[in-house]
Amino acid sequence: MSTTLTDRYPTRLLTPAPAMTREDPTAWGTADDGPLTSDRLDAFDRLGYHAEQSLLTRQEIEVLQEEAARLAVDPVLRKDERTIVEEKSQAVRSVFEVHRISSVFARLAADPRVVGPARQMLGSEVYIHQSRVNYKPGFGGGPFYWHSDFETWHAEDGMPVPRAVSVSIALTENYPYNGSLMIIPGSHRTFVPCVGRTPQDHHRNSLRTHSVAVGMPDQNSVGELARTAGGIEQFTGPPGSATFFDSNCMHGSNGNITPYPRSNIFIVFNSVDNVLGTPFAAPAPRPTYIAGRDFTPVR
Amino acid sequence: MSTTLTDRYPTRLLTPAPAMTREDPTAWGTADDGPLTSDRLDAFDRLGYHAEQSLLTRQEIEVLQEEAARLAVDPVLRKDERTIVEEKSQAVRSVFEVHRISSVFARLAADPRVVGPARQMLGSEVYIHQSRVNYKPGFGGGPFYWHSDFETWHAEDGMPVPRAVSVSIALTENYPYNGSLMIIPGSHRTFVPCVGRTPQDHHRNSLRTHSVAVGMPDQNSVGELARTAGGIEQFTGPPGSATFFDSNCMHGSNGNITPYPRSNIFIVFNSVDNVLGTPFAAPAPRPTYIAGRDFTPVR
Repeated sequence: MSTTLTDRYPTRLLTPAPAMTREDPTAWGTADDGPLTSDRLDAFDRLGYHAEQSLLTRQEIEVLQEEAARLAVDPVLRKDERTIVEEKSQAVRSVFEVHRISSVFARLAADPRVVGPARQMLGSEVYIHQSRVNYKPGFGGGPFYWHSDFETWHAEDGMPVPRAVSVSIALTENYPYNGSLMIIPGSHRTFVPCVGRTPQDHHRNSLRTHSVAVGMPDQNSVGELARTAGGIEQFTGPPGSATFFDSNCMHGSNGNITPYPRSNIFIVFNSVDNVLGTPFAAPAPRPTYIAGRDFTPVR
Repeated sequence: MSTTLTDRYPTRLLTPAPAMTREDPTAWGTADDGPLTSDRLDAFDRLGYHAEQSLLTRQEIEVLQEEAARLAVDPVLRKDERTIVEEKSQAVRSVFEVHRISSVFARLAADPRVVGPARQMLGSEVYIHQSRVNYKPGFGGGPFYWHSDFETWHAEDGMPVPRAVSVSIALTENYPYNGSLMIIPGSHRTFVPCVGRTPQDHHRNSLRTHSVAVGMPDQNSVGELARTAGGIEQFTGPPGSATFFDSNCMHGSNGNITPYPRSNIFIVFNSVDNVLGTPFAAPAPRPTYIAGRDFTPVR
């Protein structure tokens, strides 16, 4: 741990600390840098997200659905550590690093409609920090409690500042009642430090359930964000709809008792000017299939 | 068990049985019997529910909110078996028989806007089968899995046929994302027998969590209902909004990770021509605070 950087986002503390205003920008680029208009880029800057009702066509989604289904039953992949299996049902919950496993997903990540807005939002070339397919089954898919991804990526992966953006692309219909993504609008401007030291190999548990307290904000801070930052926005839409969101958005999702599964592709782009170092608050870096260290720009 | 009635709704079986079409009517009355127009009564008959965006005024709701809050902290009531406490947090989850505990709720149950549609739907005088206030906290209120209330009331309370109606009145805002009521439209026309013998004192567990399998329909039947009967309807609205729904509606609710609690008042009216007898599939009747046996009509 020879780093001499000042940690501007201290977290995993021994005692609670107040939420702090984020110092770094959200939209680093301009309207000249990509597909989003100045108005839409401003909205992303203010709200922390940008939603598209039809980023991909129905035909394109069918190909991606087939590829996702193929990966879920691949017997070799099943034994791979990149495949996360649900505790109770033993069903596949996520497959990580799909842009390396599958050329279909590699092409998707490089598609200008996908990577273009990310480059523009981050104002630089970008590389893939993480990619995965999430399979959220019907009839009891569990909730994901409120969290900031950046809090984890900073603490456990050594990501210096919140200059990363995620895109979630729907493979199935997102209804209001099947566990769709919720974001507190404007919450990305506040950093909520979390209490509790990161245990060794924390990711092995935190990826399976979200019942572990480390890396979770306290209820008061989340309630305060919802009160002051503007309630809750829920993202619904057909297969092919997509949500880009800033790495520090406070987000989560409810469980899903409905018969309707909710699958999506999740790709995280990080700025090449924000590459990973030593974790800021964890004993060791997470595996590279969760937090990539190949900083080659997406072309 | 000297009953000679034929059980037309057999459930709690040893082996699975196919879902069956309900023989009994849903709307037993006519437009002449009460406040609902012929069109709205027809819609209730077809869908199984009837929603009102403002059954009660904001002033009326404030009085009810205060009364609900008073009951939740009453130290004597806290020790009463009618008060159900959440396992983990020890927070009050429900108070039963509120129409006997509180004159405020007794008056509410006799209000023509509340009991009037019930009389009309059931085509007779009605009495109160059950009443309760539900306090569903924010930040992790649990889900209620899909179920038919009539299935339970028939099996465990000896309710002969589905000639009962529930009204749920919102005390807090029902958002799409804080665990609001979901119903499968048209599902009330199908009776789904459940597998599994009812254990002794089953209600002690089934009221606390819904993780017990007895009295729960199988996933295939629920999936089939959603496919054929018409998807899922979710009920949102401000405090004072209300949903009347048939006793055999397949319904449930997701958990709630949001900061927004979801409290409601729940009153079940049963027809005086459908009073309780011996349970059809349980060792003993449930306590009267859960399943009333005072069949005096509401006036």
